[in-house]
Amino acid sequence: MSYFITLEGGEGSGKSTLIDYIKEFLENRGKSVVLTREPGGIDIAEQIRSVILNKKNTKMDGRTEALLYASARRQHLVEKVIPSLNEGNIVLCDRFIDSSLAYQGYARGLGIDEVFSVNEFAIAGFMPDLTLYLDLDPQIGLKRIAKNKDREVNRLDLEEIQFHLNVREGYEEVVKRFPERIVRVNANQEVEKVMADASRILVDRLHV
Amino acid sequence: MSYFITLEGGEGSGKSTLIDYIKEFLENRGKSVVLTREPGGIDIAEQIRSVILNKKNTKMDGRTEALLYASARRQHLVEKVIPSLNEGNIVLCDRFIDSSLAYQGYARGLGIDEVFSVNEFAIAGFMPDLTLYLDLDPQIGLKRIAKNKDREVNRLDLEEIQFHLNVREGYEEVVKRFPERIVRVNANQEVEKVMADASRILVDRLHV
Repeated sequence: MSYFITLEGGEGSGKSTLIDYIKEFLENRGKSVVLTREPGGIDIAEQIRSVILNKKNTKMDGRTEALLYASARRQHLVEKVIPSLNEGNIVLCDRFIDSSLAYQGYARGLGIDEVFSVNEFAIAGFMPDLTLYLDLDPQIGLKRIAKNKDREVNRLDLEEIQFHLNVREGYEEVVKRFPERIVRVNANQEVEKVMADASRILVDRLHV
Repeated sequence: MSYFITLEGGEGSGKSTLIDYIKEFLENRGKSVVLTREPGGIDIAEQIRSVILNKKNTKMDGRTEALLYASARRQHLVEKVIPSLNEGNIVLCDRFIDSSLAYQGYARGLGIDEVFSVNEFAIAGFMPDLTLYLDLDPQIGLKRIAKNKDREVNRLDLEEIQFHLNVREGYEEVVKRFPERIVRVNANQEVEKVMADASRILVDRLHV
């Protein structure tokens, strides 16, 4: 079966741990799973990403950045996600369109509708079948990151706590707009409980 | 006075010659004029351009390309066009949003409305005050290019004639959508007549 699942959430919400768990959970039930995240090793998407992340580009406008993210998303979708779905895999993607809506649309103030319109062009109908949103108090997320020395601290981790609170508000708005597609998971719980909740959702939606 | 003028047209339609003439025409009437074209020496826009033009990127999807053009447009607009307008200049830009609508939206088949929506996000209201569209039979345009040895022949020049006919049809559609902003100039005429027509339009619109 082909099925397109995305994971969303703020910094330190446990996406990486959960996505590995879900892959194993589905594979144990005989499913073929492709795990990916943008830019996913796709050469053109990597080139675009390096423009976004180039530290010399201090003059980059927020809309330029949003358009670049959408262009890298498009290429990753075309070269990796769609072919993997066409081969009958379940595709698990760490972050997708909702990250742009929450971070750029809401927290950066570009507007959720505006950023959605650009991303609609990028994905051309390939919306995820299911999105798990790991909802977490940003204070807890940032503490978790601080404890985990293996994890590289990136620019966003260091943003003011207010930014992360805004991202969470952004995700709340996005969940309201796509109540059928997005399922909220309480990520304030112990990781075992988060995994159990995710498993129940997968059984319910995919009948695995 | 600040005023934003763009020039549009197919290959060999004489934009470069006309834009130099217009600059002189306006400067002779005491106006301060900034001449530019995307990516206009803006570092971030140049970086984006080099991803678009990288010959190794044979797998680039049409939507990825359209998003990249829109992102480079945004940055050029923010760093060059808007500051120049704010300083009270007339800005003359060789190609702008209508090129994307005619080439990518129509001739490449992505849809004029779809490409316009992405570019609306990029320009955020900064539409040109006036656009001169140099309308030319593509057969004549391509012959002109072939004669001009100083001009570098680019990839688009070498496209099938059908593509250039499609671009012209695309421009026709775009002119219909923006009848107030876009003025058609008959570029099949001798260059002196084209300049005379352009002068009349500028006098009429800018009262120079």
